[in-house]
Amino acid sequence: MTATGANEPLLLQEKHEGVAWLTLNRPRQYNALSEELLAELTQTFRSLADDPKLQAVVLGAAGKAFCAGHDLKQMRAQPDQRYYRRLFAACSDMMLSIRRLPVPVIARVHGIATAAGCQLVGTCDLAVASSEARFATSGINTGLFCSTPAVALSRNIGTKPAFEMLVTGDFISAEEAQRLGLINRVVAPEALDHEVQALLGRIVDKSSVAVRTGKQMFYSQQEKQLEEAYAYAAEVMACNMMAADVGEGIDAFMEKRKPVWQGR
Amino acid sequence: MTATGANEPLLLQEKHEGVAWLTLNRPRQYNALSEELLAELTQTFRSLADDPKLQAVVLGAAGKAFCAGHDLKQMRAQPDQRYYRRLFAACSDMMLSIRRLPVPVIARVHGIATAAGCQLVGTCDLAVASSEARFATSGINTGLFCSTPAVALSRNIGTKPAFEMLVTGDFISAEEAQRLGLINRVVAPEALDHEVQALLGRIVDKSSVAVRTGKQMFYSQQEKQLEEAYAYAAEVMACNMMAADVGEGIDAFMEKRKPVWQGR
Amino acid sequence: MTATGANEPLLLQEKHEGVAWLTLNRPRQYNALSEELLAELTQTFRSLADDPKLQAVVLGAAGKAFCAGHDLKQMRAQPDQRYYRRLFAACSDMMLSIRRLPVPVIARVHGIATAAGCQLVGTCDLAVASSEARFATSGINTGLFCSTPAVALSRNIGTKPAFEMLVTGDFISAEEAQRLGLINRVVAPEALDHEVQALLGRIVDKSSVAVRTGKQMFYSQQEKQLEEAYAYAAEVMACNMMAADVGEGIDAFMEKRKPVWQGR
Repeated sequence: MTATGANEPLLLQEKHEGVAWLTLNRPRQYNALSEELLAELTQTFRSLADDPKLQAVVLGAAGKAFCAGHDLKQMRAQPDQRYYRRLFAACSDMMLSIRRLPVPVIARVHGIATAAGCQLVGTCDLAVASSEARFATSGINTGLFCSTPAVALSRNIGTKPAFEMLVTGDFISAEEAQRLGLINRVVAPEALDHEVQALLGRIVDKSSVAVRTGKQMFYSQQEKQLEEAYAYAAEVMACNMMAADVGEGIDAFMEKRKPVWQGR
Repeated sequence: MTATGANEPLLLQEKHEGVAWLTLNRPRQYNALSEELLAELTQTFRSLADDPKLQAVVLGAAGKAFCAGHDLKQMRAQPDQRYYRRLFAACSDMMLSIRRLPVPVIARVHGIATAAGCQLVGTCDLAVASSEARFATSGINTGLFCSTPAVALSRNIGTKPAFEMLVTGDFISAEEAQRLGLINRVVAPEALDHEVQALLGRIVDKSSVAVRTGKQMFYSQQEKQLEEAYAYAAEVMACNMMAADVGEGIDAFMEKRKPVWQGR
Repeated sequence: MTATGANEPLLLQEKHEGVAWLTLNRPRQYNALSEELLAELTQTFRSLADDPKLQAVVLGAAGKAFCAGHDLKQMRAQPDQRYYRRLFAACSDMMLSIRRLPVPVIARVHGIATAAGCQLVGTCDLAVASSEARFATSGINTGLFCSTPAVALSRNIGTKPAFEMLVTGDFISAEEAQRLGLINRVVAPEALDHEVQALLGRIVDKSSVAVRTGKQMFYSQQEKQLEEAYAYAAEVMACNMMAADVGEGIDAFMEKRKPVWQGR
């Protein structure tokens, strides 16, 4: 782990064959989500949302930790409720910008993810973790209940384990996080990149129309009553059927060959 | 596996001691849900809903697969959005007719269940599977995101595993499906009928009033806020208490004998 | 197990260092929730809600069982729908008084928890059970579907396992209850008190402001749509930040010392 200088970017970005690789880059601060890093993330996700060639995003982090949540030192320096209101609203906006991004975001979790860092994992569409990663909503230990993290956590795992994590602040292992539903896969640290690539490979070989249609509809239908959800889903599916890719996809399936997507 | 002729019924039906046994019967098409089969299923569930003596339904399938979802060949032959709109609405109606049936429907899953076939398993009230069964929402592989299956899937399993299945199209094993909550029980293939019978036996020995009251109230309360759910449940329970069967049930319990249900 | 006389209190209460220890005390009736016990519980939870020094509640039970649900004998003696309506409303009020209590309630489950007894476990914020405990929503066996228990059960465990428990009335083991999410921890019977103390210890060392803020916000946000939940959570968190305890908590964290809470 090397120190990052003042001019080092807070967020590293790389694009390669339709995949944006983002790296939280405040390793000495355990990638704490300062105002500046939150703004950088939100702006990045918004700008990525406009890239029609984007297929997926991988969000990782530099240094020992994945993300330790808010920057407590910065917060403590500003004892002003209006400031906090803006800060937590900005953090929630960043989380919602992940949800609004039309393509899947995979969290690559190699180390601890606490408080808003744990929320970040919960907010990503998919998450692959090293067996060395650990997860906690630890705000309670400083007197600050993890209220915004609770929103993401309780939409991934059950009521009782979520409440236990929030009120005790205790860490859970990556295996337990997988069992509870907070992450999709756990692998040995040395296999982490391979597993992220494997999952990514299962997404980028799909029709972009289908993936983008799917991400948006998946979360929308979750917030509807059953009958309303079905009416909405049936309409989305009828639209999706008109895409050129579906004709090609079905033909390829029936001819037992690989489809060639046109992305429309 | 033998071929079914043109005059072979698409859906086999048998009634025996209050249980309707339905068998999807398009084995050569992996029981794909053609327009005709969807219509047959919906009509059958609606007609079963009027049978006051019905206690449960078992839904199985002929041939190698449980159900491979929509009939892609038939769909591909009709490149018309109005047609698709009607088709997906008809499929959703069929799924809702299972939900509206006043008695429990048990899926007997002996082979693969994909796309709308996987949704069918999610929609049944209970599901018993062979360890050889596998589950996928594989529409994404043909460019068609499994939007309507997502509605049922995400009401059975957690957000992250549901999204992974939908966006990768990958199969999960029966053991994994049970762990995630998509099915109730997994057994060796040769024990499947025995296990279905065992679960069925635990339902048909109950008061029909209680089971019918319960199925309807269970799903209704799930869509309500907590306080509203309690107000509704308390009212349902006070009504249920007035049934002759409850008097008999409590007396039998206190006298340590088997109750004799009158079904009212 | 010794018999309790007519003048024995139905609910034992003890307060010790900010923790209220409640014990259901109808051991010969398996702690069935008679009208009188329900009233006693509701009144106790309401009165505890006014104690500013309270940090947590532990709810246990005397005798062999944890709680066998409603008092069937008493119910059977009053075949009057208005009576039942009042009874189930009173029971739901009691459950809601646990939810409204500003501090966490831990269920200490040493034996069977059935029907409204199982609901009681589901309603407590946290639950620790002995490996000898078993759980069932067994009303269906007497012709009375566990409608009010279904409300709590289906907010803790998945749809299919919840429906199976409700319609079969079958017991599940403590291990299965933990796997499904109904309880937090399972231990050997002789380790039960130690485990309850360990979990309790993780709560009472927290800032009371944070815990009380957290319990209320956690359940409120669960019933909101995502964006509304975030707006609410961000506001709660900005308020929480103004508490004296948070300043102390963050300072202590940065100075690597134990915080001294002022409870405001």
